[in-house]
Amino acid sequence: MEPIKAYKQKSDYSYTLGAFPTFELINTRPENVREVLVSNGFTEREKLEGLCRKNNISIRTDDKTINRLSDKENVYVIGVFNKYSDRIKPGSNHLMLVNPSNMGNAGTIIRSALAFGIKDLAIISPGIDVFNPKVVRGSMGAIFHINIEYFDSFDAYSGKHCAGSGNDRKCFSFMLDKNAGMLTPDNVPDAAVYTLIFGNEASGLPKEYADFTYPLMLPQSDEVDSLNLTIAAGIGMYLFKNKNM
Amino acid sequence: MEPIKAYKQKSDYSYTLGAFPTFELINTRPENVREVLVSNGFTEREKLEGLCRKNNISIRTDDKTINRLSDKENVYVIGVFNKYSDRIKPGSNHLMLVNPSNMGNAGTIIRSALAFGIKDLAIISPGIDVFNPKVVRGSMGAIFHINIEYFDSFDAYSGKHCAGSGNDRKCFSFMLDKNAGMLTPDNVPDAAVYTLIFGNEASGLPKEYADFTYPLMLPQSDEVDSLNLTIAAGIGMYLFKNKNM
Repeated sequence: MEPIKAYKQKSDYSYTLGAFPTFELINTRPENVREVLVSNGFTEREKLEGLCRKNNISIRTDDKTINRLSDKENVYVIGVFNKYSDRIKPGSNHLMLVNPSNMGNAGTIIRSALAFGIKDLAIISPGIDVFNPKVVRGSMGAIFHINIEYFDSFDAYSGKHCAGSGNDRKCFSFMLDKNAGMLTPDNVPDAAVYTLIFGNEASGLPKEYADFTYPLMLPQSDEVDSLNLTIAAGIGMYLFKNKNM
Repeated sequence: MEPIKAYKQKSDYSYTLGAFPTFELINTRPENVREVLVSNGFTEREKLEGLCRKNNISIRTDDKTINRLSDKENVYVIGVFNKYSDRIKPGSNHLMLVNPSNMGNAGTIIRSALAFGIKDLAIISPGIDVFNPKVVRGSMGAIFHINIEYFDSFDAYSGKHCAGSGNDRKCFSFMLDKNAGMLTPDNVPDAAVYTLIFGNEASGLPKEYADFTYPLMLPQSDEVDSLNLTIAAGIGMYLFKNKNM
């Protein structure tokens, strides 16, 4: 078998770093798992072996490869998986990230999305590669529960999922714009089906998003330049989830 | 002048890494600034020099020290400052972190606190050192706006700020406990003065906090083990801030 190489975007496989995301991988996408590598120091080996056996997944001890792929971090398990492609569901609530650039942030946001029951993520290109092990790890394996689809532009997304799609979908853009509606716990909009849109960590959303979506702003002190993107996304998803049960 | 050393908890000074937190430092705590180091490549030098002059702060070019202290990151400015100690204000709303262990998370939470107008942070020891440059940087300099005080135990905090202090303070603990009150946007408690309490990233809050505070839980899917601490803290502070204006 060829040795497992450090992740590259063009490669057809990626891997989980750590036991928790590896269990998530096997439980959620067993058909995509190539093999599981385990370190001699791993304490839950029996449980992992049982799960692999049940799913016909090969597992082997390989400390050397684990050390090579995991940098300095404490990693005892790696799950190698074939990359796959999803389509987001037409009738579901969507999260949209426009040109996301930080891999750890994207992972954290994906974990929050799963926590708040949003299982479809649209990414407007260019943006980070969600299969990068840093995103997978940041998501704690939540990424395997989520359908993720890339679009070249908002128009490409909108053509499929908004006007004319048969859905009464409302799209909300989170912006730093004092003319946007201030979103408080008391005034969360009703929406049968919604898309929550967040911009890039540094540059935010392009202004024109206010023209074709409902712009919203989370009230915040002038003493900070902005909320961290992961925090804004977490609050937005929490509010819409609990308002529109 | 003795050379500036890499940060240690026992040293009596620390430093900002980057222009944004350095401007925050100078604008907020000018009396604590020892000196400012700037790199040849820094583009806003005039603005920074003007601000230093106004505050009688010495500024000098020192690429070598900046490179040494900043690791691999793109840092063009460092502000060296004398560490200081604060007392949290008795009548204000407080954020409490119990045994926080991740420095980046602490920085992000401090930034969110400032965004939501909470300017007093109690830390129950043991916990991260807030003057570590990683915390300062994670906070984007928000830390200089916040009073931070360490306490040996919840009792030590409570003796000063709860019963008998003359405040009608209510303390709310965020826990992963299905017996806790589920906190939705519609049922945020009224509180004239409040303390919001969050536990350690890995272990959460000790169960006994439910006995002497109001336990709350953010509703979340069973498909994740928990929300990221920074997200939970962000949502909690957002909700209480907007409910109790």
